[in-house]
Amino acid sequence: MADYNGLAKDLHLKYRGKITTALRDTRQLNYDELSAYYTPGVGHISALVAENPALLADYSWTGNLVAVVSDGSAVLGLGDIGAAGAMPVMEGKALLFKYFADLDSVPIVLDVHEPDEIVATVKAIAPSFGAINLEDIAAPKCFEIENRLKAELNIPVMHDDQHGTAVVVLAGLINAAQVTGRDLNDTRVVLSGVGAAGTAIARLLKRYAPGAHIIGVAKEGMLHRDYRSLSEPKRRLLTEGLLADDGAGSLSDAMVGSDIFIGVSAPGIVTAPMVRSMAHDSLIFALSNPVPEIYPDEAAAAGAAVICTGRSDFPNQVNNALVFPGIFRGALDHRVSQISDEHKLAAAVKLASLVPKPTVNEVIPSIFLPNLSAEVASVIV
Amino acid sequence: MADYNGLAKDLHLKYRGKITTALRDTRQLNYDELSAYYTPGVGHISALVAENPALLADYSWTGNLVAVVSDGSAVLGLGDIGAAGAMPVMEGKALLFKYFADLDSVPIVLDVHEPDEIVATVKAIAPSFGAINLEDIAAPKCFEIENRLKAELNIPVMHDDQHGTAVVVLAGLINAAQVTGRDLNDTRVVLSGVGAAGTAIARLLKRYAPGAHIIGVAKEGMLHRDYRSLSEPKRRLLTEGLLADDGAGSLSDAMVGSDIFIGVSAPGIVTAPMVRSMAHDSLIFALSNPVPEIYPDEAAAAGAAVICTGRSDFPNQVNNALVFPGIFRGALDHRVSQISDEHKLAAAVKLASLVPKPTVNEVIPSIFLPNLSAEVASVIV
Repeated sequence: MADYNGLAKDLHLKYRGKITTALRDTRQLNYDELSAYYTPGVGHISALVAENPALLADYSWTGNLVAVVSDGSAVLGLGDIGAAGAMPVMEGKALLFKYFADLDSVPIVLDVHEPDEIVATVKAIAPSFGAINLEDIAAPKCFEIENRLKAELNIPVMHDDQHGTAVVVLAGLINAAQVTGRDLNDTRVVLSGVGAAGTAIARLLKRYAPGAHIIGVAKEGMLHRDYRSLSEPKRRLLTEGLLADDGAGSLSDAMVGSDIFIGVSAPGIVTAPMVRSMAHDSLIFALSNPVPEIYPDEAAAAGAAVICTGRSDFPNQVNNALVFPGIFRGALDHRVSQISDEHKLAAAVKLASLVPKPTVNEVIPSIFLPNLSAEVASVIV
Repeated sequence: MADYNGLAKDLHLKYRGKITTALRDTRQLNYDELSAYYTPGVGHISALVAENPALLADYSWTGNLVAVVSDGSAVLGLGDIGAAGAMPVMEGKALLFKYFADLDSVPIVLDVHEPDEIVATVKAIAPSFGAINLEDIAAPKCFEIENRLKAELNIPVMHDDQHGTAVVVLAGLINAAQVTGRDLNDTRVVLSGVGAAGTAIARLLKRYAPGAHIIGVAKEGMLHRDYRSLSEPKRRLLTEGLLADDGAGSLSDAMVGSDIFIGVSAPGIVTAPMVRSMAHDSLIFALSNPVPEIYPDEAAAAGAAVICTGRSDFPNQVNNALVFPGIFRGALDHRVSQISDEHKLAAAVKLASLVPKPTVNEVIPSIFLPNLSAEVASVIV
């Protein structure tokens, strides 16, 4: 893969960041217009909104505005690097929101890290925004934070690391299953990595295909009720039946006879013999980034039919930017107050449908597909 | 005065607010550029910043970014209208920052109201910004909140309702004193309204002219040590000698023989006989808005030489927008970590100097003076 470090440094320094603000009314403003946009005229608008806060979305930029919020505790592959380090990524997300869905967004990085503090801070600033995109918050606290904010705020809240990834993976699975003549309800799936993204993938896949048999695999092997370090969210996946309990075993053990491998885990952990042990025409989602669990050429040589990665330099890139701009665009356009599981399912089905004739090399549409975000937005109603 | 309500409603609805975000790099972006601005390239930038957070101002938009923060507790003349109602004003402020100083800014309205909660919230989000403009926060809590944030954050923090107004008033006083042949150190001043703005005016004027004799007047008359409802901040002004203690009396009593009236108080409370009782060629700053303490024509007829108001339709408008864009522009350009009293004095002197030949009708420059914010910014070093 190309090394983007040099280009990243050049561009970030040249432009001093990625986003800026601009005026919606781009005319030269005179006294009258300034008096309408600011005092005394704005007092009339404030009085109207104070009386009926629902008007704010029409009278201010909040109707088109997403906060991208992170405490910097799980930034890309860098881990817990804190607020300042997280800012360039969050500002990048704001760039993607603008570029792909014409949504205004503001990166907010937090210098607090306890769930209670994060929830309190986001609630305190929430009236400033039309929606909240949580980003790069470590598991398991990300689950509690998202659930509490969804329950306590009346604007859309979504942790993209969980759900954006899950929606794109499901879209890819829908098309890859079709290409290889499978029914997802009748598949055996190995899910390697059961953190933020893995948990959401398991939940969404089971919503779409309740018959899918999903084996969770973490650092110490297959998840089962007596797994040594079973966190509460992982235990819940087992007790709720979202993950199968096939007893103890290694990743290699889990792979034997499986139809699908979904890795949101670690570079290079899947070997050619493991892929050869899978069912014929297996599906490989090797999403560790930038180094996948197994490289596409190696997986193909070992018999995999469809291979997806997180990278733009191979076919079938699983890229959250395929869905989060459209999901938030739709939520704001249609005044949706909660992004539900049904919305995520609809987004996955819509995304899959944007590849008219899926092939092994195209189960996921290109990020540059015209109208992509508008198509996704159309089902968030 | 023209009624701006209709124009305000039309413009706010037409543009759906006042500000938007835009990309700094306005080219059509390809895969390589997206990979530099977002993953994987942005990871390199995040790693650099995590190691040395001071780099963030160069690598992100924070180096040019001000948060406009309010809890909506003292919005214009509307009072405590809360977060949603405050947003149109804060977004208006963001428009002014952009229009007059090319500064990016983000309106943040808070759904918390206790000083501890406001301080905690602003501290939590502070790494997202290069500076904090506090706005429309009620006195006396605004003093505690500003002082604590200044002490606990290493970025510039300024409550504009206090200091922006004080800087413009001092600039106007400097020129008005010159026009009427006065030495501010040898003046008797009536300060009507000793809240956020009044307190800052007293402090800044005494820094510039320690000899000024300032009589504070509040709702129940002249402030003195036995004044019935003497709040702690008001008591401190007396004990520190910033306000004179001339004993009890009414506003009328205070005005007799005074050189200067500064009102940040209530509409219509100054009468023609009061102005006639003042010294010859008196200076009237009637800043209650939109209805001043006394209208300019009435004050002039009663003998006032220079009259300033908060309104754009009379000469000598005291408008915070003359200084806050330049003060923050200078603070960010020159990496100033605190906006000090010396900065405010320098800004007032600079602003006064931008009227080359002051007259009774021009002691304060026009908001449309070319280069105004750059001139003010040049002294914030």
